Amino acid sequence: MSHPVVEFTSQSSWDLIEDKFTPFGKETLAKLVQFFKDEILPAQRLAHEQIPKDLELRWKTVVPVIEELKVKARKLGLWNLFLSKAHYPKYGVPLSNLEYAVMAEILGRGGHMASEALNCAAPDTGNMEVLARYGTPEQQKQWLEPLLDGKIRSAFAMTERFVASSDAKNIKTSIRREGNEIVINGHKWWISGAGDPRTKLHLVMGKSDPDNADSYRQQSVVIVPADAPGVKVIRPMEVFGYDDAPEGHCEVIYDNVRVPLSNLVLGWGRGFEIIQGRLGPGRIHHCMRSIGCASVALDLMIQRVTDPNRKTFGKFLYQHGTVISEIAQSRADIEAARLLVLSAAVQIDKHMAKGALKEIGIAKFVVPSMACTVVDRAMQAFGAEGLSQDQPLASAYAQLRTLRFADGPDAVHLQQIGQRELKRAPELHRRAAELKEKEKAVWEKAGMKARL
Amino acid sequence: MSHPVVEFTSQSSWDLIEDKFTPFGKETLAKLVQFFKDEILPAQRLAHEQIPKDLELRWKTVVPVIEELKVKARKLGLWNLFLSKAHYPKYGVPLSNLEYAVMAEILGRGGHMASEALNCAAPDTGNMEVLARYGTPEQQKQWLEPLLDGKIRSAFAMTERFVASSDAKNIKTSIRREGNEIVINGHKWWISGAGDPRTKLHLVMGKSDPDNADSYRQQSVVIVPADAPGVKVIRPMEVFGYDDAPEGHCEVIYDNVRVPLSNLVLGWGRGFEIIQGRLGPGRIHHCMRSIGCASVALDLMIQRVTDPNRKTFGKFLYQHGTVISEIAQSRADIEAARLLVLSAAVQIDKHMAKGALKEIGIAKFVVPSMACTVVDRAMQAFGAEGLSQDQPLASAYAQLRTLRFADGPDAVHLQQIGQRELKRAPELHRRAAELKEKEKAVWEKAGMKARL
Amino acid sequence: MSHPVVEFTSQSSWDLIEDKFTPFGKETLAKLVQFFKDEILPAQRLAHEQIPKDLELRWKTVVPVIEELKVKARKLGLWNLFLSKAHYPKYGVPLSNLEYAVMAEILGRGGHMASEALNCAAPDTGNMEVLARYGTPEQQKQWLEPLLDGKIRSAFAMTERFVASSDAKNIKTSIRREGNEIVINGHKWWISGAGDPRTKLHLVMGKSDPDNADSYRQQSVVIVPADAPGVKVIRPMEVFGYDDAPEGHCEVIYDNVRVPLSNLVLGWGRGFEIIQGRLGPGRIHHCMRSIGCASVALDLMIQRVTDPNRKTFGKFLYQHGTVISEIAQSRADIEAARLLVLSAAVQIDKHMAKGALKEIGIAKFVVPSMACTVVDRAMQAFGAEGLSQDQPLASAYAQLRTLRFADGPDAVHLQQIGQRELKRAPELHRRAAELKEKEKAVWEKAGMKARL
Amino acid sequence: MSHPVVEFTSQSSWDLIEDKFTPFGKETLAKLVQFFKDEILPAQRLAHEQIPKDLELRWKTVVPVIEELKVKARKLGLWNLFLSKAHYPKYGVPLSNLEYAVMAEILGRGGHMASEALNCAAPDTGNMEVLARYGTPEQQKQWLEPLLDGKIRSAFAMTERFVASSDAKNIKTSIRREGNEIVINGHKWWISGAGDPRTKLHLVMGKSDPDNADSYRQQSVVIVPADAPGVKVIRPMEVFGYDDAPEGHCEVIYDNVRVPLSNLVLGWGRGFEIIQGRLGPGRIHHCMRSIGCASVALDLMIQRVTDPNRKTFGKFLYQHGTVISEIAQSRADIEAARLLVLSAAVQIDKHMAKGALKEIGIAKFVVPSMACTVVDRAMQAFGAEGLSQDQPLASAYAQLRTLRFADGPDAVHLQQIGQRELKRAPELHRRAAELKEKEKAVWEKAGMKARL
Repeated sequence: MSHPVVEFTSQSSWDLIEDKFTPFGKETLAKLVQFFKDEILPAQRLAHEQIPKDLELRWKTVVPVIEELKVKARKLGLWNLFLSKAHYPKYGVPLSNLEYAVMAEILGRGGHMASEALNCAAPDTGNMEVLARYGTPEQQKQWLEPLLDGKIRSAFAMTERFVASSDAKNIKTSIRREGNEIVINGHKWWISGAGDPRTKLHLVMGKSDPDNADSYRQQSVVIVPADAPGVKVIRPMEVFGYDDAPEGHCEVIYDNVRVPLSNLVLGWGRGFEIIQGRLGPGRIHHCMRSIGCASVALDLMIQRVTDPNRKTFGKFLYQHGTVISEIAQSRADIEAARLLVLSAAVQIDKHMAKGALKEIGIAKFVVPSMACTVVDRAMQAFGAEGLSQDQPLASAYAQLRTLRFADGPDAVHLQQIGQRELKRAPELHRRAAELKEKEKAVWEKAGMKARL
Repeated sequence: MSHPVVEFTSQSSWDLIEDKFTPFGKETLAKLVQFFKDEILPAQRLAHEQIPKDLELRWKTVVPVIEELKVKARKLGLWNLFLSKAHYPKYGVPLSNLEYAVMAEILGRGGHMASEALNCAAPDTGNMEVLARYGTPEQQKQWLEPLLDGKIRSAFAMTERFVASSDAKNIKTSIRREGNEIVINGHKWWISGAGDPRTKLHLVMGKSDPDNADSYRQQSVVIVPADAPGVKVIRPMEVFGYDDAPEGHCEVIYDNVRVPLSNLVLGWGRGFEIIQGRLGPGRIHHCMRSIGCASVALDLMIQRVTDPNRKTFGKFLYQHGTVISEIAQSRADIEAARLLVLSAAVQIDKHMAKGALKEIGIAKFVVPSMACTVVDRAMQAFGAEGLSQDQPLASAYAQLRTLRFADGPDAVHLQQIGQRELKRAPELHRRAAELKEKEKAVWEKAGMKARL
Repeated sequence: MSHPVVEFTSQSSWDLIEDKFTPFGKETLAKLVQFFKDEILPAQRLAHEQIPKDLELRWKTVVPVIEELKVKARKLGLWNLFLSKAHYPKYGVPLSNLEYAVMAEILGRGGHMASEALNCAAPDTGNMEVLARYGTPEQQKQWLEPLLDGKIRSAFAMTERFVASSDAKNIKTSIRREGNEIVINGHKWWISGAGDPRTKLHLVMGKSDPDNADSYRQQSVVIVPADAPGVKVIRPMEVFGYDDAPEGHCEVIYDNVRVPLSNLVLGWGRGFEIIQGRLGPGRIHHCMRSIGCASVALDLMIQRVTDPNRKTFGKFLYQHGTVISEIAQSRADIEAARLLVLSAAVQIDKHMAKGALKEIGIAKFVVPSMACTVVDRAMQAFGAEGLSQDQPLASAYAQLRTLRFADGPDAVHLQQIGQRELKRAPELHRRAAELKEKEKAVWEKAGMKARL
Repeated sequence: MSHPVVEFTSQSSWDLIEDKFTPFGKETLAKLVQFFKDEILPAQRLAHEQIPKDLELRWKTVVPVIEELKVKARKLGLWNLFLSKAHYPKYGVPLSNLEYAVMAEILGRGGHMASEALNCAAPDTGNMEVLARYGTPEQQKQWLEPLLDGKIRSAFAMTERFVASSDAKNIKTSIRREGNEIVINGHKWWISGAGDPRTKLHLVMGKSDPDNADSYRQQSVVIVPADAPGVKVIRPMEVFGYDDAPEGHCEVIYDNVRVPLSNLVLGWGRGFEIIQGRLGPGRIHHCMRSIGCASVALDLMIQRVTDPNRKTFGKFLYQHGTVISEIAQSRADIEAARLLVLSAAVQIDKHMAKGALKEIGIAKFVVPSMACTVVDRAMQAFGAEGLSQDQPLASAYAQLRTLRFADGPDAVHLQQIGQRELKRAPELHRRAAELKEKEKAVWEKAGMKARL
């Protein structure tokens, strides 16, 4: 009998990886699928409805149904699944990256609230990883543990306004020591989570040593309490008109914010190291969620084009134009993308994130773009309704579209993968020369002279 | 010396069509370009700012700066330019479709408010055409003249909720006579303009004779005063996260609405005829505006990638990856699209909309999709800011995306153009047979036997 | 340490599947890689050179170096690897479809001659499968065994001239019994192998019972000796100017050809069954070879763009335009395609070809098209030389291009996959209804009324 | 009534440009269309048949039917139409670039032989332009006049083997003076026309002053008689599997070839100037021919998909999959491409080739690629037959594919157009700053403070 996950993914991808799952992994996955169907999906629209439309109130809201789900999820052991015991022995869950990747796809089918219900939502996930790996015992007690408990939320403040901050060397926020305090001044935006009333801390990246000859030692990261004087949340940024309250992606000014020295993370000048560590597995979780999201879009498209109420000129929508081909193409796109990401997850499990840069990079430029395309095809099948608040497609598209630059734009990943390939050139030239020698011998033996 | 329009379009498209402009056309175009630069563009962001964020107030707003622009535009004769005297001798302006098409591109650079400032904004344009062509003198006096004066606005109610209304035969709204009154019952949505406080009338399409054997005689159109009892504006539909207040695209229920018999347009059973007449030139105006919109996106992209503040890793953005190629491709896409639409406009001018169906159809599936692609490339160059309220790109994308189904989805136009091509088959087969005969003669003369 | 196959494929795909290889599979794979590098690759251009240019002689040639390779390969046990013992216990080799798929990619790097050197070349492979599965002991002794020994070759005659023969019901070739003989009349083309001097038999598909109400019982397959009177090889068909001598893809007329009754395969009316059985795994072998071919093209492209002799305007080719992005994209395309095909191979191993139709179909429309694109990018990097006889790219492109209709055009596979997806509709509608019920309960519990 | 050209192009493109045709232009065009239908098309396959298959004879052939057509064409005044009187008053024909462009599309429907029949075939056309513009009276008498008479043919030798010669500075062929002679040594390939028995001269580009500080003054061009000692035609290069005999694209070694000083063209160090002048209009003629070629492919595709003999599963091919959409897309692609090229032709007529670089560049990267795509779609509709010698599609594809690097690869043109766009940046920044000032005023007047 098939594993329940097949209902939401595919038999063939499961057949390919099943033997890499532990019994615990399989069991957790089965529980997650059940919880997803029974509890998360039915609550999805309600969660959205429980966010007030009022422009002030919506930023002060803790969505009741999500809080209820969190209690249930934790009881079931569906909690902090992103945190791999192999890398975080103290706090982690015994799941491999591959195992969690499959779960992330399921969660991606339920939007942001699904991840939140299992305490697996960004940016908390990355922040918990940072604190679990680099935090002092005091920092862990004060900040990590309530995060792991799902009692507070957090923000990660890196992107800066007016600055091309995809190059970390451009960062302008100043982090300097004054006696026993650290003083932070900077202008950030797109700070996810900064709008949430439960957010208690910002991890802030800035320059502590801007003149250091080693440009990767100029940055530091500090913990800033969300309510510290000088932390000014200016406004929510919108993505295609969506503000994503209550979490939001906010513009934040740090105006002479002061925190104790003990809020420094890992050490002076180690900020770059911290963000590097933060990026690997998180990227493929994003990718898997995107695949889940694309799969939902395809399912909706199939429902729409087979809906007898949507017949035009006596035909189902699927009988028109290129709909069937588009559906087939979307299915192929999703299957290929999933295999790429699962393969990247296996690489991480076998060789750590550093040994999986190629696979992560490929997934990064292939998957969000693919998911946008699949969702776009579905929107087209729905007509105007597909762009509206009555379907989840347009807001999904908006989210997916941001992933084409979050953690580096597509172009950067394309360049990096292209450059990696170019590094194979010397070996290829060497092999070609070697082959030419062998070839000469074969031709001679055949009594002929090799050309060239 | 070049005509001022070249600043916003291209020398080569102007060179191609200049001799088809009358002196009046050229002069009007020059005035429009000047007015656009001096008055419309500088007011664009202000107009947006003058729409309150408050969820109630924004629907009660008449944007002051647009009203001021309307006064100025009218004084300059930049008014109702969409209404061609050739087709509407009484009310029209002596401009050809080609001449207005060029102007529409300029207006498209300024968003919806630019068209509104010249009283050239949909859906009023199409409604004025309907009333000018089919209205009784009384209807024209009561409704058309204030529309032409820019004193009121209007809505066109065709699309229905729960119905695949791209096939007009599916329409369910009932329009029936009761004594001296017409009674309307129906559930529409995506009714542009229905949210505007200035909107005084809805042209409502419905079925007056649902059992008529001729399915194109079942529909009628009536004028419904916006304040008639039973006209219920339920909610604004959103496009991505935008509500496009104050105009909006609303869900509207017509609940036993009663209007006098004299509000019938053209006659019983002539609704299909009316909407057919409404679609031709309007489609290419949409297309030209889309081209203007894409051009602005390309201009913004060029500014961004040459902005020294956006350098990363010591290079301008344009020095990275595929940016230059994308810019070149966007330029080519825009030029090709403009030529297609101008060519369609010339066809309308020479052969009426009916004789230009092929060219209009091609423009319809090529242009919005092209414009989406160009804007998407620009968004990618801007990163997250490109999706936000700080740049016009994401909202432009949202608008352009709707044009891929407004007035019929891409797939319908592709099918129609494909079918037109297939109609050439008998002639092609005939020519092939004829050629084979000639070929045989040539081969024989050469002393050879033609194969096949 | 990595397995040697990684040199020609990728670490990540190997990591994903390694544990599905038996020790024998791994060892055979390692031997094959070595043989490929030491023997096949160095002989590749010589094999091509040993085919005379003369238009007659080239069809009478047995390429000496390939015959030498065959002897060596057989000694090493690298022989008939395509024939899986699981399906063909008597004649097969103990390799799974997955294991052979990986080998097929390597072979694909060496063109057609590489497969031939291991007696794994189409159309012999499919024909051997047919005879091993359905042949009588006499047929096996007379035809299969010399084929398995690599002493003779064979053709499969299905496609017909003037007929849309991708629909087997359209086939016109007549196969009828006359006493103790079978008489065959038909006009076929694209008969691969028919030009080869070593070809001793054609498997011919035709209609033996054209009026059978069951259109899948009208066809039969017979063994026709290549030298039977009435077998007329008319001409080689060209593919982009290539004739692919000596094997060729020929036009063949069967003019009153008579064979003994014992040459019937499997039974009267079982032709459709035979070709169905013939298609499954062969398709993914084609796909894997295509991936090998694409990989070679990418390697060549990398060599070209890093060649200092090809600098223009002071820069390496890879420093121009979009070359790096294209290389990255090609790498991603190849990796994704390989994963799709490997996943299809696993499905065949687990569920037989019938249970893998979805995965085979997806591979079929994704892979050849992908490979064409990758090769095309490489050709563009090489300029005119890339299209010429001095590089293997254009002829590779020509071969790959045929795979977009061989065994059914892309469109057919897209339709079939699309239709499979549509079959999920009832289940999706059911789930949606079920979800709505659960949703209602959740909303009620929260004291709200679910909309819709 | 429509002009006859509409049969082979489109009403809408004709309507757009008709008024730019002189009466002579229109009349010549009508004659050409008639001649094309009555004489050229019926001879097309015969011309191909009259080239022997024999590998030696095919290079010694003057195709009889083309010679007959030349006589007829000249009588009708359909001769040397490419040579515009405006630029070549002595030898030219009074046709604008636009007028000839339209004719070139028609010729493109007939393959290379159609152009040859009117003495409008490359590389003679460019060579005649060079000699007409830069030749001495003696050179013109000896070489130009027989070329204009269609009595001899010619080659242009620029591309070099082992050299990235798309950058003219890389050229290695040496051209040096020795007393009253010029000595040429070099290794060229892809020399079109070098295989033709009628070819009497090569225009050879080489370095006469390789150390000149001005890298654009290092090159010279000389006339080399085809039969001069030391001119060694090594072999024909193939494009895919085609050798394009008898013209060919040959590898040629110039081994100590000596010509009199009077064979220098224009002057020492002026080679770069000569090739620059040679490229402009020729490029758009290539483009227009490509459009003609694509149109033929589309016509063939339409015939195929409506052919009742090609029905599968009871349906015409056009009723399957995405055929109709592809046909519509091809139609749109062709129309857009034609408009781009016609627009470029108008630019050349108004502003000379130098003033039309943008339009020529766009056409250059858009059109060949578009034509390849359209032909590829047609090939797919034909299945294997589409790739074979029985249809003109594969050979057309091969020719079109070369145009993606002939006269510079797509990437170069994309870069140049992209760079041109980037040059607009300062003006765009200036306008943006100016707009900001105006905006400030408008906001102030409205009692608000402009943000940013």
